Amino acid sequence: MSSQNQLQTLKGFRDFVGPDAQNRRWLIAKIIEVFEKFGFEPLESPALEYESLLTGKYGAEADKLIYSFEDRGGRRVALRYDQTVPTARIVAQYQNKITFPYRRYQIQPVWRADKPQKGRYREFFQCDADIFGSESLIADAEILSVYYFIYENIGISTFVIALNDRKQLIKIIQNNGISEKDIFSVIQTIDKLGKKTEDEILEELEEKAISQEKGKKLLKELKQSEPSEKLKKIIKYAIELGVPENALVYQASLARGLDYYTGIIFEGMIPEYTVGSVGGGGRYDKLVNDLVQFDIPAVGFGLGFDRTLEAAQELGKVPSFITSTTVLVTVFSDELTSLSLEMTKKLRDQNIATECSTEATGKIDRQLKYANKKGIPYVIIIGPEEAQKNVIQLKNMKTGEQKELNFDKVLQILRS
Amino acid sequence: MSSQNQLQTLKGFRDFVGPDAQNRRWLIAKIIEVFEKFGFEPLESPALEYESLLTGKYGAEADKLIYSFEDRGGRRVALRYDQTVPTARIVAQYQNKITFPYRRYQIQPVWRADKPQKGRYREFFQCDADIFGSESLIADAEILSVYYFIYENIGISTFVIALNDRKQLIKIIQNNGISEKDIFSVIQTIDKLGKKTEDEILEELEEKAISQEKGKKLLKELKQSEPSEKLKKIIKYAIELGVPENALVYQASLARGLDYYTGIIFEGMIPEYTVGSVGGGGRYDKLVNDLVQFDIPAVGFGLGFDRTLEAAQELGKVPSFITSTTVLVTVFSDELTSLSLEMTKKLRDQNIATECSTEATGKIDRQLKYANKKGIPYVIIIGPEEAQKNVIQLKNMKTGEQKELNFDKVLQILRS
Repeated sequence: MSSQNQLQTLKGFRDFVGPDAQNRRWLIAKIIEVFEKFGFEPLESPALEYESLLTGKYGAEADKLIYSFEDRGGRRVALRYDQTVPTARIVAQYQNKITFPYRRYQIQPVWRADKPQKGRYREFFQCDADIFGSESLIADAEILSVYYFIYENIGISTFVIALNDRKQLIKIIQNNGISEKDIFSVIQTIDKLGKKTEDEILEELEEKAISQEKGKKLLKELKQSEPSEKLKKIIKYAIELGVPENALVYQASLARGLDYYTGIIFEGMIPEYTVGSVGGGGRYDKLVNDLVQFDIPAVGFGLGFDRTLEAAQELGKVPSFITSTTVLVTVFSDELTSLSLEMTKKLRDQNIATECSTEATGKIDRQLKYANKKGIPYVIIIGPEEAQKNVIQLKNMKTGEQKELNFDKVLQILRS
Repeated sequence: MSSQNQLQTLKGFRDFVGPDAQNRRWLIAKIIEVFEKFGFEPLESPALEYESLLTGKYGAEADKLIYSFEDRGGRRVALRYDQTVPTARIVAQYQNKITFPYRRYQIQPVWRADKPQKGRYREFFQCDADIFGSESLIADAEILSVYYFIYENIGISTFVIALNDRKQLIKIIQNNGISEKDIFSVIQTIDKLGKKTEDEILEELEEKAISQEKGKKLLKELKQSEPSEKLKKIIKYAIELGVPENALVYQASLARGLDYYTGIIFEGMIPEYTVGSVGGGGRYDKLVNDLVQFDIPAVGFGLGFDRTLEAAQELGKVPSFITSTTVLVTVFSDELTSLSLEMTKKLRDQNIATECSTEATGKIDRQLKYANKKGIPYVIIIGPEEAQKNVIQLKNMKTGEQKELNFDKVLQILRS
């Protein structure tokens, strides 16, 4: 047993201590609030699945990143790699129990044996919402709408959704004489528009045996294209559901890397946050059938949890959680302990987040130091004099100001 | 790839679909509410740790139940088996960052390759709260208090905490001439009082070379014993913190299976729930040092999440979550879709959990069936007549009653 290892977190894994954990709790609560207002219900899948459920579902490269092993019963098992495949299993397995169209959200960690680097971890939260079992364009609009309103609820009003219609994109590519087998490869190149220059894109297309001339024509056509009738309708519906018109931007070159989309595709962007998109999604009417042989249309998105939290922090939208505790009740002496305990109870009864000091009784200095270090805004001191006069010393830890007050006045201040 | 495996959950693992997931969300929210009111802050540790951190920490038998494997980088890693060991690592690793006494709670899944049976799973939530870094009896009382108030918040007012002082228990056993090396074995036998008859206990003690006479004297002494002065003080403090006197029961035979407790020990019980205790804990001032060579006193508890949820359900304390959706807005026709979308938006703006139907437009029967199956209490219908008159048909799905109303009246009903 290496004692060195004992005090280390595995590379790519994170501990969330103090405010880091609180920030995550805050974001989850904000997200769930919107999901529930939109009628999405929670779902939990196990961390471990049969390996056979996962392998071959994400592509050969991804298969290498799945954490898999043989369990003590000789079964090949694998850690959740994403939420789509387990959910596909669940939708198929419980098809007689679930009410369709099925709106569900899911916020759980996934594990990928990826090379750790800035912003890429081996354990991270995925946050997905999907509607299974509806071909209606209203479903697409509901998905865009819940996605937008999560950011509105976080306070990021600049959030923008870039949109495209995968079918129209394919049609435009086909009309440019690109053969069936090259389409997806061309889509992946086009997806880089915005990150790469047009010349670089044309070069990359040339490597894929598409002449400069053909490439130029294709890009021009994309630029001049209008949203498909379907996409126009979805956008109209989303606007009627309250999404601001300028938060929905048609982007003809938006391609999305995954090959399974069959209709609308989209990506969420925060202009002030330049690291990249904060998730995206689309319609995938054939994927569940491909995965688990259950024929059901679907539309949904995955929200980039870590990036969204980072963006919210950068934009100053996350409340400063030094601690959730509002007040520390100090303990003056053994004889006066009961008064402090009773005060703690009275404050909690009034829904004030309160701690009774567990530092050594009487060491008021140490107790104040604790409050200061933990960032607790107020401290109560009840010494012999206060006990006799039935008053409370309330100290504001920020200003250092200390006042002798009665309980009602203390309550009033702690509530404000 | 076995297609059979694909639609199966691994034995001992669970999917939480629909109300099952909602119930868990409800309980977690209830628990966290109390933790935060008591100044406990969240903590998240990774699912995977170095195997060397976990092995040898839970005993030889438990070591066999740890899910461990070699990762793709050749590291021996293991899935979280409990929250105590990872937290001990974190407390030691971040000792210069954490403010002590450190109050933290943690609610995360753990994995154990245990034999699955009724009520025992291979993946389950642990819910722990501890105070690290305080020897004060106020810390013990704060722990008892937060434990009690969680059940009060759930609505289980019959919750009782059985208490004992491990040090006094050991002293009584020693005073009965039982040698040092047999003490823990005797404790484990005594722990069965209540589950086994006194005669059975005496027999078991005899097998451990403690004569009937000696055994009888021991049990009698335990029965006649009074709580230690320390325990009396902790109980007094907990009562001052608001725990009802009758919720704190001294139980001289309470032993707790684990050997690491150094002071107070306790177990939570719901009298109407006969499956067993709903968790417990105690003071363990030496454990963190034994685990990670960081000398720090600690007191805390683990709440039995699954049992608590089951008990709350049996006692009718869990709200009936058929769905969180209050109302479904149906879509009468393509022409009237916009009216339904706008109605959906207006209701959500008023914080009413609303779905716009994503069933095929116009199939009102199917849309009503969906609401009925999902348990949505109200349905809104806006047909051409309603559109013209600017009114709404509101159908109560429980009574079948349908009324023509204006928006304000609808809002009033949906809010009640």
